[in-house]
Amino acid sequence: MTLGRRLTAEGIGTALLLAAVVGSGIQGERLAGGSVALALLANTLATGAALVALLLTFGPISGAHLNPAVTLADASRGGLGWRDVPGYLGAQIAGAVVGVAVANLMFGEPVFALSRHERHGPAQLLSEFVATFGLLSVVSGCSRLRSATAAPFAVGAYITAAYWFTASTSFANPAVTVARALTDTFTGARGGSPTGAGAPVRETGGEEVRMTLGRRLTAEGIGTALLLAAVVGSGI
Amino acid sequence: MTLGRRLTAEGIGTALLLAAVVGSGIQGERLAGGSVALALLANTLATGAALVALLLTFGPISGAHLNPAVTLADASRGGLGWRDVPGYLGAQIAGAVVGVAVANLMFGEPVFALSRHERHGPAQLLSEFVATFGLLSVVSGCSRLRSATAAPFAVGAYITAAYWFTASTSFANPAVTVARALTDTFTGARGGSPTGAGAPVRETGGEEVRMTLGRRLTAEGIGTALLLAAVVGSGI
Amino acid sequence: MTLGRRLTAEGIGTALLLAAVVGSGIQGERLAGGSVALALLANTLATGAALVALLLTFGPISGAHLNPAVTLADASRGGLGWRDVPGYLGAQIAGAVVGVAVANLMFGEPVFALSRHERHGPAQLLSEFVATFGLLSVVSGCSRLRSATAAPFAVGAYITAAYWFTASTSFANPAVTVARALTDTFTGARGGSPTGAGAPVRETGGEEVRMTLGRRLTAEGIGTALLLAAVVGSGI
Amino acid sequence: MTLGRRLTAEGIGTALLLAAVVGSGIQGERLAGGSVALALLANTLATGAALVALLLTFGPISGAHLNPAVTLADASRGGLGWRDVPGYLGAQIAGAVVGVAVANLMFGEPVFALSRHERHGPAQLLSEFVATFGLLSVVSGCSRLRSATAAPFAVGAYITAAYWFTASTSFANPAVTVARALTDTFTGARGGSPTGAGAPVRETGGEEVRMTLGRRLTAEGIGTALLLAAVVGSGI
Repeated sequence: MTLGRRLTAEGIGTALLLAAVVGSGIQGERLAGGSVALALLANTLATGAALVALLLTFGPISGAHLNPAVTLADASRGGLGWRDVPGYLGAQIAGAVVGVAVANLMFGEPVFALSRHERHGPAQLLSEFVATFGLLSVVSGCSRLRSATAAPFAVGAYITAAYWFTASTSFANPAVTVARALTDTFTGARGGSPTGAGAPVRETGGEEVRMTLGRRLTAEGIGTALLLAAVVGSGI
Repeated sequence: MTLGRRLTAEGIGTALLLAAVVGSGIQGERLAGGSVALALLANTLATGAALVALLLTFGPISGAHLNPAVTLADASRGGLGWRDVPGYLGAQIAGAVVGVAVANLMFGEPVFALSRHERHGPAQLLSEFVATFGLLSVVSGCSRLRSATAAPFAVGAYITAAYWFTASTSFANPAVTVARALTDTFTGARGGSPTGAGAPVRETGGEEVRMTLGRRLTAEGIGTALLLAAVVGSGI
Repeated sequence: MTLGRRLTAEGIGTALLLAAVVGSGIQGERLAGGSVALALLANTLATGAALVALLLTFGPISGAHLNPAVTLADASRGGLGWRDVPGYLGAQIAGAVVGVAVANLMFGEPVFALSRHERHGPAQLLSEFVATFGLLSVVSGCSRLRSATAAPFAVGAYITAAYWFTASTSFANPAVTVARALTDTFTGARGGSPTGAGAPVRETGGEEVRMTLGRRLTAEGIGTALLLAAVVGSGI
Repeated sequence: MTLGRRLTAEGIGTALLLAAVVGSGIQGERLAGGSVALALLANTLATGAALVALLLTFGPISGAHLNPAVTLADASRGGLGWRDVPGYLGAQIAGAVVGVAVANLMFGEPVFALSRHERHGPAQLLSEFVATFGLLSVVSGCSRLRSATAAPFAVGAYITAAYWFTASTSFANPAVTVARALTDTFTGARGGSPTGAGAPVRETGGEEVRMTLGRRLTAEGIGTALLLAAVVGSGI
């Protein structure tokens, strides 16, 4: 499989993933009549199902990482060659941004709008650490199974659970973190991961948002690096 | 497997699929007490589950396309012979119409009633394009897996997500598009794809409906043709 | 595998299935605060999941029919020997009755109580015909797949859908039909199949219930026989 | 695989399981606006999905028992050596306690808080017996399938159903029983298994809680022992 074809698969797959995450969040919130639990149930169902479908679909082409953290973990374990990593990351982030734009357009929202949802604090950081740790464990553990279909179900199921069991409804996916800052809807996240479900919304200037995004990505980067070191070191 | 048996499988399978789509929509709306999100959750759950069951069931007989777009894509890639295509399309459309009638009868609705739900505009067209593009990608990608059971789960999961992440709750299935114009219930769609969930309902004459249906099918046809060219050309 | 062990598996499996069907119906209705859609969603989720678990569990022992209609269809196609059929049917019905009693006891209901839910008419009969036809198609079609795990998922998914797309929330399972007449809770059915969700409840004498049950089982028996003839004859 | 690595897998897996159970219970209750059914649906979805993901992930390393009852059943059938059993049980209980603490911290609750939820009586004991019997049957039956992926789905599906069909939303897992006594949130259980959904809450002293926990574990221990004897003896 040529690198061009693999990058196309990563880009399209991540775009469809973000379209599903953001689009189902918009539709869920619009139809839920004010019940955040119902909106998040719809969002969760659509996200988990989309992951199963997309990982089965693009797995045979590019490995279907659709996630910079998975790409880095795979390269750390000697799966993907390091020189393919920048292309993977670029395709994922570009795809994620396109996917958010597509979702916003499908529902008549502005193509891009800076999210005003926001959450802070150590509980959120712990949530993201737990979510990322769990996701990398799932990806790593399933690679031991001699089954091309186990990991798609495991990852879809894991994210289904993580939407509910982490306080940030974290995605453990930096491409999603960036892209969700670009929609001011249910799944939008000011500088990051929370769905903002139930969060108090307040107006902020663009500058502040970019700073928060920068800080959050730095925190995610350090956390991911530590995690990768731990995961690779422990061999789990 | 003889052609007659395969066409019977396509017809029965598509009829059961439409019975599930339309029937669960009626039951969901009746029991949901006005919550569109709850009705659509039930409709989604039943549709996705029916797809998994029916694709596993009829896959070994006819390939379980249950969808003219899938049949055309399969023939374009050299799977199904072109001379079997008209029979497949006819069986799918006839099955879809029978399935809608069965659902209407099971719930005491008129056998056929022109849908008065309607949605228009570029956001809807984008939704249908995205939904069809995604579905054909899923079908194409899963054909690379050496597993007869991966595609049924992937397609069921994809449609589960697409009900929520597209503004039209599109089916990416022309047979469904035709058939859903024939029920004036939750999943009914005037000339096409939307569930009409939450859509303003207004009375229209039959002539206008047929025109809308004609226009929509033309748009779907052109879109599908472009998609097929792109998919086949890119080899994804 | 000895016949005794297989009959034990059929009995325990059917008992657990009915405990799941009836128990989750009670719990769903108690917690749903009057929303029938929410109660049926919980009932559907639990029933579909229980079927997946139980068919995977008891499949390797007895084939996990857990359903007289499946046993008869299997014998008709030369799978199960006809002299094992009475034992299978007896174990299934006995298991189903025990399962209802267990569910009633777990939730502090009377061990047995004649159901007062009732539905009638041609729409109900059509629903049961469609449901049974679909289930036997699923079981038959999946037997062509060389996978011991496909049928459990397909049957679980099919019943998940059928709870919503048939007007009777039919089980297509005579053992369930008998047993559900013995609980006067959410899934209870006077002489048969409906969950009675949303149905007007009225008091009836035991005699009338038994007559209705008799009539319903006769109708189901004739319908199943016709179906089996059609299915076996057509070879689908 | 060294014992150290297997115990690490059991500990991490059980911690993530408890984080998912308790965390999704907190989030579900917070977002459900008073609907216990909606909160339990979210809790069920997250728990079942987490089980599928974690059993697929840690199965290839340690067998992914994540449950003292499963470890004891496995040792009884000659799977795990008896001298590894104490390590497994210790890792599971320690992991469960850590997981509850992580969930409490993620949602800003006290690290540990004795649960004030409580349920009693023979109906509860029957529920736990049925739940444990079913779980051990599922684990045992699936070991006959030549598939490394069947048991994770079967167990996840079984617990999904058991949350709804038992009056105690029992986990059939002593490590969970212990750990859930340490959170005073939706899934918290005074000395044990119930989610306490809908249960009247009343203040109790710590001493009384410990006694109840002790009594409940004794009952569970005796019940599990009897079950194991029956299961091993009958060979099901």
